[in-house]
Amino acid sequence: MAGRLSHIDTAQPDLIARATLRIDTPGPALIEITHDAAQFLNQSGAGDGALTAFVQHTSASLTIQENADPDVQKDLQDFFAWLAKSGPRFRHTAEGPDDMPSHIRSALTQTSIGIPLQKGRLALGTWQGIYVFEHRDAPHRREVMLQVIGD
Amino acid sequence: MAGRLSHIDTAQPDLIARATLRIDTPGPALIEITHDAAQFLNQSGAGDGALTAFVQHTSASLTIQENADPDVQKDLQDFFAWLAKSGPRFRHTAEGPDDMPSHIRSALTQTSIGIPLQKGRLALGTWQGIYVFEHRDAPHRREVMLQVIGD
Amino acid sequence: MAGRLSHIDTAQPDLIARATLRIDTPGPALIEITHDAAQFLNQSGAGDGALTAFVQHTSASLTIQENADPDVQKDLQDFFAWLAKSGPRFRHTAEGPDDMPSHIRSALTQTSIGIPLQKGRLALGTWQGIYVFEHRDAPHRREVMLQVIGD
Repeated sequence: MAGRLSHIDTAQPDLIARATLRIDTPGPALIEITHDAAQFLNQSGAGDGALTAFVQHTSASLTIQENADPDVQKDLQDFFAWLAKSGPRFRHTAEGPDDMPSHIRSALTQTSIGIPLQKGRLALGTWQGIYVFEHRDAPHRREVMLQVIGD
Repeated sequence: MAGRLSHIDTAQPDLIARATLRIDTPGPALIEITHDAAQFLNQSGAGDGALTAFVQHTSASLTIQENADPDVQKDLQDFFAWLAKSGPRFRHTAEGPDDMPSHIRSALTQTSIGIPLQKGRLALGTWQGIYVFEHRDAPHRREVMLQVIGD
Repeated sequence: MAGRLSHIDTAQPDLIARATLRIDTPGPALIEITHDAAQFLNQSGAGDGALTAFVQHTSASLTIQENADPDVQKDLQDFFAWLAKSGPRFRHTAEGPDDMPSHIRSALTQTSIGIPLQKGRLALGTWQGIYVFEHRDAPHRREVMLQVIGD
């Protein structure tokens, strides 16, 4: 064994809850939705279980990242902007020069994230925040489906 | 709050269903399996809940991407082929020169994707398709486990 | 249809179980936790369902990779070390020169992985192992939340 396992907490699944979160993005940005997800969780009444966050787009994505120093988010944006433009030339340019790099950045990060719950709270680490990663140049309205299966 | 939360829909979880999807790949390609996942969902009878798609390989992966313009898939393939070959030389060459780049592309994309359901349908966005991303040069038989927990 | 779907196995969800796995890392490494996850599963008594593994950090991550040739893990480490250092200079340096590259490598891999169960076992492919990917230079104590929803 590589690690040490704590005691196990158990519960009975008896709830599925689902809502849609609408986010207006300002163009390229990481927009924190941790508090929105917590609000959804509160309203659902779930105690234990797992949350799924799912972004219904292919040019915006999700990531869990440090929520302390805003420079982390700027560095992340710069890195992914650099990376998506460093490869071969793109064929798909009909939707604008920023569309295909957005698909690339989306494929390199997450469309879907599962997060366990612990006594009615998201079991995030101290410095973890959930972010919508907007990759397009123009502002967009984005939809994130939030779902919990729990008790 | 960053966004606006819709009302919450709820249901009672009373079903786990699981099947294996076998895909014959032609070598490097993105093969859409959205309709296979929808067929599984139909046969399972699930209404609400969440689907997990899990590829049982480390040189093929999963991604959710645009299903409209086939050039997007070609550009994705070219980008990931370029990226995996741009780094340091690989030690692991015993299974062929395309094996380690395949592991890299797999690590950069997804082995597992969770997708919420909404009234018996996958809650995908308008332009989202689920793809098996074959990274090896030769044709392979790939297995994707599909599972739903729902009602 | 792209593939061939097997018959469907079903079960009734009646269990949520959760534990924390503590891992002491030696600095940059891929540490396999497949057996820890299997031990958790055994102790939980779950038969069917899905496991969520969630790392509560933003400078360590999770990946599912080949568990046969240790060179695969070395090549993965070298590739991701190279990639995170190939981009633009970072602003976020207060926590050391290895911190921001660690966030990048974390964003490029997984914070969360969902794995279906099959008759009380993780439905991993033959060569798949679950790894904690330590990105920081110094040894760290890391926490991975393991959770199962199943029967």
